[in-house]
Amino acid sequence: MVYTVYINILPHPGILDPQGKATLSGLHNLGFAGVQEVRIGKRIRLNISAASVEEARQLAEESARKLLANPITEVFSIELEVQPA
Amino acid sequence: MVYTVYINILPHPGILDPQGKATLSGLHNLGFAGVQEVRIGKRIRLNISAASVEEARQLAEESARKLLANPITEVFSIELEVQPA
Repeated sequence: MVYTVYINILPHPGILDPQGKATLSGLHNLGFAGVQEVRIGKRIRLNISAASVEEARQLAEESARKLLANPITEVFSIELEVQPA
Repeated sequence: MVYTVYINILPHPGILDPQGKATLSGLHNLGFAGVQEVRIGKRIRLNISAASVEEARQLAEESARKLLANPITEVFSIELEVQPA
């Protein structure tokens, strides 16, 4: 079965996010005064062939830990699409 | 009230994603043979001060359309954290 799994990555709390800061200024310049903070990370969609949802989740978590996310500067979470693709 | 809103951005279906392709090769080289496709986008977290959840969602959507996402090459979705921050 092929599962669709999302890996959501954000800068670690306490780590500066200059891209987010610049975007916040841009939003304020466009008149979006209500926006107070912007943090920019990555969203990665994986199609994973696995025997079970649990196996797909484990594979995604391992690939995030080993390649996709930087554990020093980023935090990640795994999101499984409920329906297998 | 301050709401936490996520904007999830992925490359438009049909648009090539060279970064995703390179990452897929990297995963295969590391032994993650079960991964079949990788698409890489952005995840943006906004803290929005608004009078209601609906206002926060509308603000997020407008900021995505006007600044954060490129409507030609990307698709985005809005995700509201259920609890106001």
